[in-house]
Amino acid sequence: MGTNVLKTETPTSIDDAVYFLKENFNEGDHRPAISFGFGDPSCFECFRTTPIAEDAIVEAVRSAKFNSYAPTGGILPARRAVADYLSRDLPYRLSPDDVYLTLGCNQAAEITIKVLARPGANILLPRPGYPDVETYAIFNNLEIRQFDLLPERGWEVDLDAVEAISDENTIAMVIINPGNPSGSVYTYNHLNKIAETARKLGILVIADEVYGHLVYGSSPFVPMSLFATIVPVITLGSVSKRWMIPGWGLGWLVTCDPSGLLRKDEIAESINKLLVYSPFPPTLIQGSIPQILEKTTQDFFSKTINILRKNLDICYDKLKEIPCIMIPQKPEGAFFAMVKLNLLLLEDIEDDMEFCLKLAKEESLIILPGVTVGLKNWLRVTFAVEYSSLEDGLGRLKSFCQRHAKKYSLTGSTAADQQIHVEH
Amino acid sequence: MGTNVLKTETPTSIDDAVYFLKENFNEGDHRPAISFGFGDPSCFECFRTTPIAEDAIVEAVRSAKFNSYAPTGGILPARRAVADYLSRDLPYRLSPDDVYLTLGCNQAAEITIKVLARPGANILLPRPGYPDVETYAIFNNLEIRQFDLLPERGWEVDLDAVEAISDENTIAMVIINPGNPSGSVYTYNHLNKIAETARKLGILVIADEVYGHLVYGSSPFVPMSLFATIVPVITLGSVSKRWMIPGWGLGWLVTCDPSGLLRKDEIAESINKLLVYSPFPPTLIQGSIPQILEKTTQDFFSKTINILRKNLDICYDKLKEIPCIMIPQKPEGAFFAMVKLNLLLLEDIEDDMEFCLKLAKEESLIILPGVTVGLKNWLRVTFAVEYSSLEDGLGRLKSFCQRHAKKYSLTGSTAADQQIHVEH
Repeated sequence: MGTNVLKTETPTSIDDAVYFLKENFNEGDHRPAISFGFGDPSCFECFRTTPIAEDAIVEAVRSAKFNSYAPTGGILPARRAVADYLSRDLPYRLSPDDVYLTLGCNQAAEITIKVLARPGANILLPRPGYPDVETYAIFNNLEIRQFDLLPERGWEVDLDAVEAISDENTIAMVIINPGNPSGSVYTYNHLNKIAETARKLGILVIADEVYGHLVYGSSPFVPMSLFATIVPVITLGSVSKRWMIPGWGLGWLVTCDPSGLLRKDEIAESINKLLVYSPFPPTLIQGSIPQILEKTTQDFFSKTINILRKNLDICYDKLKEIPCIMIPQKPEGAFFAMVKLNLLLLEDIEDDMEFCLKLAKEESLIILPGVTVGLKNWLRVTFAVEYSSLEDGLGRLKSFCQRHAKKYSLTGSTAADQQIHVEH
Repeated sequence: MGTNVLKTETPTSIDDAVYFLKENFNEGDHRPAISFGFGDPSCFECFRTTPIAEDAIVEAVRSAKFNSYAPTGGILPARRAVADYLSRDLPYRLSPDDVYLTLGCNQAAEITIKVLARPGANILLPRPGYPDVETYAIFNNLEIRQFDLLPERGWEVDLDAVEAISDENTIAMVIINPGNPSGSVYTYNHLNKIAETARKLGILVIADEVYGHLVYGSSPFVPMSLFATIVPVITLGSVSKRWMIPGWGLGWLVTCDPSGLLRKDEIAESINKLLVYSPFPPTLIQGSIPQILEKTTQDFFSKTINILRKNLDICYDKLKEIPCIMIPQKPEGAFFAMVKLNLLLLEDIEDDMEFCLKLAKEESLIILPGVTVGLKNWLRVTFAVEYSSLEDGLGRLKSFCQRHAKKYSLTGSTAADQQIHVEH
């Protein structure tokens, strides 16, 4: 709060990290604070959701049909709408019985972890990844084993590592596609290889596709469920990101298993048992989902994608100009670029957390330290903010990096060394 | 499903119980099914919520201000509105910091249990009570000790029992007022005694007030937080029942401790930590709460109370006419009457579960067996349904009881005995 002491406890979630960084804002800085911390651009006018989604809520509330408790798993029309929405991209049809409505994608992940957890079991999670899933695993005594995503190969899964760390107690591997925090979009071929590997290992694939369809490059979005004939897939998704309404809290957990490889009745029974004692998404929101999923037109999606693609181009170009920041791959999807700090080029900064804390203090700018998502001395930068904030924030980032850059003389000695020479 | 075999697994929740009963419906019965199973009358036109609540949602969605993730605990205007709403009945003021928004009253109870659970601790729960709270305690390894509510004394808490079962590891006692399933409304004096007892024992009071203000008799609704100067109180509540919108999923957990007896910072920190990893009520719904709580007029509440009071009178009179049903006390609040079965007057029915299963099968009528809420051979009957269903359902209940009544001859032998005599 404007003091000189940096508050440096290690945060355990993205929320915590952003909160800690904000605590270090300098009250004397009268510029508006800018956050590149969350994946939530819904507060910006240019990312306002479609009127079709707003109309759907208005109709649901005016109908007075959605004021009662919902059945476990959700009301049938909403489950059917999700099944139909996801089936559009598949050569087989999902049934409403495959769909469980959840409070956003996070609760879908939590329920999945709870259902799969058993004594001695382990789960394979990507690094970098999404910290809340790790927390759910820890809460449920599920051992975490991490495999690397390979920045030099477009953040693809290191499948050799997956094979090396799995054993007979491994129950599933998690992928996040489009990638958070990596911004990667996996090709058909890579997803196919993931499916083949999982089949070989006898494990499920849990596909977090909350950023589904938010792609800006040459790779189209390919859902993991396309490979569910090879290996059973649990798909996690939501209207939060594509429709820019995370505050409406509507997600889904979908069991994709057209070949019946999964003992679906058992899984279904476990999910239903858990859901009976879990909070459920408000019936009112469920009631709006058929209209949102069925009636939203391509215009809205195209407009959003165009803004995000333009932002991404700017973000990528500006980040490339900053010497201490290395960007291994231009993002192709989701809301983020994952970039590496070259600490050798910076003075008085020891790691990503100190970088972000000083950045918050000196520039009133929030960027997520990579350690929060599993990669120390990296940064997760979101480009899903409105244009003026993006430009302003990237300018502040550049100034900050310049101010903290080590100063080299022509002979290779640093500015600090030179200072010493002068004084002598 | 129309077979002769009754499905009789023991249900562990109200949802499960109602589901099992429905499984026993006779498909050949072409009368509409009637449910007195849940406390949710929102599907009936006469209990439609106020237009003020609907308008509040419409304004919230049209404003586009509530599409983003909410901060942990809820958005400030909504927390303030709940604090102000509850403070109307108190001689002190609650602060928005005392309020945590939850997904209905159930999540408020779940979070409270999780926050208080620690190894070796126990909690005192009422019998009859609300089974989900027991489940949360079991899930969190919190030992349950039950105290009786006394039907002959208006379902008041047996405070001697509370003292007898508590020890140094007891952390809290739960009361439900107005009572579910009992329909009781506690007086100022009884609540005062509860507070004094809890203070003496050094335990918290958790007050489930989800049915707050839904009272029809001479006792007004008195919130437990009125006694928070004597003992710290955690109040659980919701808009679900008073506004007839359980499907909107908005509840609250409120720490009431004007004298600072609770180590509130620790409790607050624990609650916040838990909420970071818990689903939260959609921001969109949170955004509607100030208007709902501040603008709803007395007309709406009076209309609802008048319908419920009339229903209660009918229900009470009709139940009294049925010989095998004993109603110890006319309900004064909430949605339920808790009545005792006299099994001696029934043939071919062994217990409340069999009663309810056969009732579902023969009359397509759902009534909750008392065993589900902790009292074997009792029934929980809701009168919060529309008038025609209430009358129809009570008629079916009466026919069912007549049909299954033991038939006595003038000399005291049963009809079955007489049959034997005739045959001989």
